[in-house]
Amino acid sequence: MIKKAVLPAGFTANGVNCGLKKSGKPDLAVFYSAAQAKAAGMFTTNKIASPAVALCKSYLKSGKGFHAIIANSGNANCFTGKQGLADAVKVTAEAGKILKIAKSAVFPASTGIIGKRLDTAKITRALPGLISGASATGIEKAKRAIMTTDKFPKEFTAKFDIGGKTVTICGVAKGAGMISPKMATMLVFIFTDAVISQKALGKALAGAVERSFNRMTVDGCMSTNDTVILLANGCSGNKLITEKDNFKPFSSALDMICLELAKLMAKDGEGASKLIEIRVKGARNDIQAKSAALAIANSNLFKTAVYGENPNFGRVVQAVGASGVEVKEEKLKIKLGPLDKKEVWVDVDLGLGKGGCVVYTSDLTPEYIKINAAYN
Amino acid sequence: MIKKAVLPAGFTANGVNCGLKKSGKPDLAVFYSAAQAKAAGMFTTNKIASPAVALCKSYLKSGKGFHAIIANSGNANCFTGKQGLADAVKVTAEAGKILKIAKSAVFPASTGIIGKRLDTAKITRALPGLISGASATGIEKAKRAIMTTDKFPKEFTAKFDIGGKTVTICGVAKGAGMISPKMATMLVFIFTDAVISQKALGKALAGAVERSFNRMTVDGCMSTNDTVILLANGCSGNKLITEKDNFKPFSSALDMICLELAKLMAKDGEGASKLIEIRVKGARNDIQAKSAALAIANSNLFKTAVYGENPNFGRVVQAVGASGVEVKEEKLKIKLGPLDKKEVWVDVDLGLGKGGCVVYTSDLTPEYIKINAAYN
Repeated sequence: MIKKAVLPAGFTANGVNCGLKKSGKPDLAVFYSAAQAKAAGMFTTNKIASPAVALCKSYLKSGKGFHAIIANSGNANCFTGKQGLADAVKVTAEAGKILKIAKSAVFPASTGIIGKRLDTAKITRALPGLISGASATGIEKAKRAIMTTDKFPKEFTAKFDIGGKTVTICGVAKGAGMISPKMATMLVFIFTDAVISQKALGKALAGAVERSFNRMTVDGCMSTNDTVILLANGCSGNKLITEKDNFKPFSSALDMICLELAKLMAKDGEGASKLIEIRVKGARNDIQAKSAALAIANSNLFKTAVYGENPNFGRVVQAVGASGVEVKEEKLKIKLGPLDKKEVWVDVDLGLGKGGCVVYTSDLTPEYIKINAAYN
Repeated sequence: MIKKAVLPAGFTANGVNCGLKKSGKPDLAVFYSAAQAKAAGMFTTNKIASPAVALCKSYLKSGKGFHAIIANSGNANCFTGKQGLADAVKVTAEAGKILKIAKSAVFPASTGIIGKRLDTAKITRALPGLISGASATGIEKAKRAIMTTDKFPKEFTAKFDIGGKTVTICGVAKGAGMISPKMATMLVFIFTDAVISQKALGKALAGAVERSFNRMTVDGCMSTNDTVILLANGCSGNKLITEKDNFKPFSSALDMICLELAKLMAKDGEGASKLIEIRVKGARNDIQAKSAALAIANSNLFKTAVYGENPNFGRVVQAVGASGVEVKEEKLKIKLGPLDKKEVWVDVDLGLGKGGCVVYTSDLTPEYIKINAAYN
């Protein structure tokens, strides 16, 4: 595992400013594989989702093979109706024209302000230069072009061996905690050169997302644009990974990448000063453990107490009691780690069964209010 | 309706400092009716509830008639196990002894720190003076003895006529938004001299609570000690109120009192600078309307935007979309009132049906963080 994005064989990327961000910072990214890639995706379950999300889902279903992701920051293209869908289609069609591939081989992704029409003219004007400039090292620019309130880019790379061939998985993400429908959508793009079956790809991604991004929360607000896309172009030439063969090394590496990206997002939660690890065990089952852990992670009172380094276990008691999971006062054990650290933990033992779950969040600070009160 | 507590005929009250609050401010209250009263109660559904709540429920079931409430602030007597229950029983037994009534005629209520044993010696030492000093005007002290982080006491009185007899309903409440398990439990005590059947009393209270306190939220954190008790001592001598006779004037007055108390609590939400009224209509049904309204009311992003007077309707879109209720983007209409006021509103029309609900909350401010980070 290296804490840096190193694109796998056959992938290139680039990032430019196309004018959506007035600051002049990069706001348009391309990720590209000349070799046709398989793809898997996971998306927001918010009932009002961006047309970009709808289009990704539709391409995943009907597409015959995938080559690229075009992602913009500065505008979420959400709550934009049929026009928004037409605009997302236009971006993928224009990119497809330049790349000489079907539009359905290009995934769109957007993050930024909700309810304003995407300025596709700015994007299409910038696409030729963006695409022609793509390179293996262009990931440095691409990872910054998807940032919004992020204080730092999130990136991880894992390399492992399958039958003498090195397989690489590289993930980049943006999201200061998948919290704001205006800015802090979670976008995660993962690239691998693995040769892998479609089924194994989907299974590995679903498992990794459940064990990482679904166990991380900053303020419980699910974005309209959350998107995770995994592209596998097979350039490593390894022996085929299936659900039965060589699955474990691939899925373990993917798990690690997703978990580390999730932790980086929680750490970068808007205004966050601390990363909080909430470890629940002794629940009736894993689902109840997750509910209890998320209830604590989403408690403003608990998160504020952690910010204040105030070892207030009553706030954990309250959150667990209100979470709806089975809990018996006389069995409940709570232990708070030292709070005067950058990374803190709380252990909760419900004492009832074997269910467990670990969830990550950040503290709630005056800075969170400042960021979200002032932003327009 | 008057914005002041005026006890109905036959009720007295008092408040003193018994030493639970080190500040010397009142921390122990009695509310008393020499005439035997009927009672109805509603309590927290948090699975870890104070023994005081458990005892109130048990007395409501088994008790033969009621005379008093003894309430303390400064200690929640919660997460205190069997000892906590014994301590709550002791307080009611001691009060019963002095008042020469069964302990089950006395409701206990506690609010304050969780997980610390209640110092019953301090309470029992103070009980004789507290009780002997009770008077009709003692409500002034009693309403302050139940306050914790409250910036002001919450109180309302309604008077209306039933067949030539004046009936009075008076409610006092504490709670800076039923938010903190340590401090900001919601306690609501309502007194009436109405002659009313047990069934009508219970029905009126359940309806009023559903239409008020259950539609108000500050931070979505349900206290372990939330308690609403309504005592009816019959001293007005009015014609019997039943579910069929004279029910409407009674339940309307009770509704109004509960709604106004709920609004005062939201207004006094910890750190709040604005009262927010969230009006949802056009939902498939009332339950869906309430879910959507509460989702908005509990959204940190929305509440922070209101604090910043930032008319960010995207945050309403996000909350409604994530709430789980049926929503169609093309039908959804959102209107935000002017935000540069002390009382603000948002109108949401889902455009799907006839379901509606109004919910109250407050904004999320740096002051909230300050209060809850620092408090021990």
